[in-house]
Amino acid sequence: MKFEITSRSAWFPARTGILSTAHGDFETPVFMPVGTNATVKAVAPRDLESLGVSIVLANSYHLYLRPGHKLVEELGGLHCFMGWSRPILTDSGGFQVYSLARLRDISEEGVTFRSHLDGSLHFIGPKEAMEIQMSLGADMAMAFDECVPYPASHDYVMRSVGLTTRWAQRCLDAWKGVNQSLFAIVQGGMYPDLRELSARALVRLGFDGYAIGGLSVGEDRAVRLAMIEATKRCLPEDRPVYLMGVGTPEDLVEGSMRGIDMFDCVMPTRNARNGMLFTEKGRLSIKNLRYRNDLLPPDEECGCYTCSNFSRAYLRHLFLSGEILAYQLNTIHNLSYYMHLMCGIREAIRQNRLDKFREKFYERQTLLKEEVT
Amino acid sequence: MKFEITSRSAWFPARTGILSTAHGDFETPVFMPVGTNATVKAVAPRDLESLGVSIVLANSYHLYLRPGHKLVEELGGLHCFMGWSRPILTDSGGFQVYSLARLRDISEEGVTFRSHLDGSLHFIGPKEAMEIQMSLGADMAMAFDECVPYPASHDYVMRSVGLTTRWAQRCLDAWKGVNQSLFAIVQGGMYPDLRELSARALVRLGFDGYAIGGLSVGEDRAVRLAMIEATKRCLPEDRPVYLMGVGTPEDLVEGSMRGIDMFDCVMPTRNARNGMLFTEKGRLSIKNLRYRNDLLPPDEECGCYTCSNFSRAYLRHLFLSGEILAYQLNTIHNLSYYMHLMCGIREAIRQNRLDKFREKFYERQTLLKEEVT
Repeated sequence: MKFEITSRSAWFPARTGILSTAHGDFETPVFMPVGTNATVKAVAPRDLESLGVSIVLANSYHLYLRPGHKLVEELGGLHCFMGWSRPILTDSGGFQVYSLARLRDISEEGVTFRSHLDGSLHFIGPKEAMEIQMSLGADMAMAFDECVPYPASHDYVMRSVGLTTRWAQRCLDAWKGVNQSLFAIVQGGMYPDLRELSARALVRLGFDGYAIGGLSVGEDRAVRLAMIEATKRCLPEDRPVYLMGVGTPEDLVEGSMRGIDMFDCVMPTRNARNGMLFTEKGRLSIKNLRYRNDLLPPDEECGCYTCSNFSRAYLRHLFLSGEILAYQLNTIHNLSYYMHLMCGIREAIRQNRLDKFREKFYERQTLLKEEVT
Repeated sequence: MKFEITSRSAWFPARTGILSTAHGDFETPVFMPVGTNATVKAVAPRDLESLGVSIVLANSYHLYLRPGHKLVEELGGLHCFMGWSRPILTDSGGFQVYSLARLRDISEEGVTFRSHLDGSLHFIGPKEAMEIQMSLGADMAMAFDECVPYPASHDYVMRSVGLTTRWAQRCLDAWKGVNQSLFAIVQGGMYPDLRELSARALVRLGFDGYAIGGLSVGEDRAVRLAMIEATKRCLPEDRPVYLMGVGTPEDLVEGSMRGIDMFDCVMPTRNARNGMLFTEKGRLSIKNLRYRNDLLPPDEECGCYTCSNFSRAYLRHLFLSGEILAYQLNTIHNLSYYMHLMCGIREAIRQNRLDKFREKFYERQTLLKEEVT
């Protein structure tokens, strides 16, 4: 993996870059759609390609349980398995072990848990997380971390940062990924001093890139931004920084301003399946009665397949009828919106006018004036 | 509508033709995928186009209830609403009134029923069925008929044929469709004499085309074929004949041999969503354990998007994970199979070798040797 910074904002930590992997290069800041079960829900790889998606994220926890990382390896790895030839990042499974599985026990060695699918007992520690991700063969893998609950005391988080640091060392020891890079995950809860402690400890160990974990867990936006700033300033300038599980369009703008290079979130795809569409003028709830006979596309300024061919009235009908096509068309549009937003952010950074871009972005987000439920 | 017969088989009633409508021409025999709620489930119009689908069927009953035929008319008609510029056929709603709705009362005027969606009370008779279909604006519309239960006595079916004939006259009286053609539906249960009675009565009234209704309701194949033959021989050679709700690949081959020009069935799309894939070598149940690590495409001889890009192992994983992409990819493949089959049938008729085609078709259908549940 190679990371080249191609432009820097004059007044903020914002930057653009090119990340090179064995499966091709992509521009940063980048948004990675989430492909939990080796598919970005409701859309095919050809859609992702034509939308300009340059990298997707897949979940180690889910693929470990089903179909099993060894089977994916036997079938030629994740790229081959899911028919996606561009870069992939896999998470470590840590987050899902805490959020989805029934947790049994955390020890110095790792985590014992029960599968959310069938209740079967499993163990994943740093070594296992590395083995799973080596089998999956994504271009970028993540170290195994302890995800801190929110809120949590300073004491608890400090001990947790220690464990995450020791696990990061174990990950490095076990890591034999070929053409795969390994990112560490900075934790530290909502405590700037612990964010700094975590970041500096991980940087001392030395990773290909660094992620900011444990955010978007219910904290205020101001706290989130403060944690991003506290972490980012401790990370080496020449390594990519990945803000995990974030976020809203607003988060992407604010994160990019603060020097974040990579984002992922289920929001564009999950909200699409719930009938919420992102537009240049704000969020649109397609089931709203006001769209009953609305012949406009979801977003008049969007050129995606959905907006080029279908009306709000039709999309409302599909959604209310529970038609699968609703999920597909809504997802295509929301991903198009996210890709377009990131494109705009990168261009604004290159042209040193991200502040203007941000101002206009917030202005326009209120135009639709819809009460979204 | 214009129907031109372009070739005839030397030994069977089989023929090829070109049906011309306001939304373009298509070759017959043709298979029409079912787009119940103004969408062929799980696929977008662009997929249908690239699969060579030349006409789709939409259900008047469903669209009458939701979003309402008047709304569809206000939005520019069904083609515009669903983003499909090729021909569409709408059924009359009769079949769904009998099979889906809670039936209240059949009178000389029509049928009173309760919606399967919300229990609300509705009435559809011949006049209403014509109004609904004129609002929807499909290229081909169907007369309103009484769907005979199976089995039913000769007496019952004879009376029903009388009602269906009188309703057909009322449909003609109410019909003011512009650039829309109207087909009558021959009933008559499993009684050849009543099939003949129904057909001759409807032909005397004079329609643009004729459909054979009331089959594929649980009767033996031999009975079905006998009814097709009994009906077909009473219909004018120069009008298209449409076998409603049929069927399996075998049915398409047998029907085409007997001079059927149009078919529709939910089978390729519904079975796709249940994980059953049609292949040249027989039916394949994708959840079968034998495909766990099978890197072959569903059908090695198929060039569809699914078969060109994905393995049985991946499709099995998607299906077992309940992923929406499974439904999309399976549907694309099954429709591709059906389109390819119809293409082969047309070519075989033109080359006067449908018997050889049929022989080879049956031979190859057993090659996969899978126990399909």
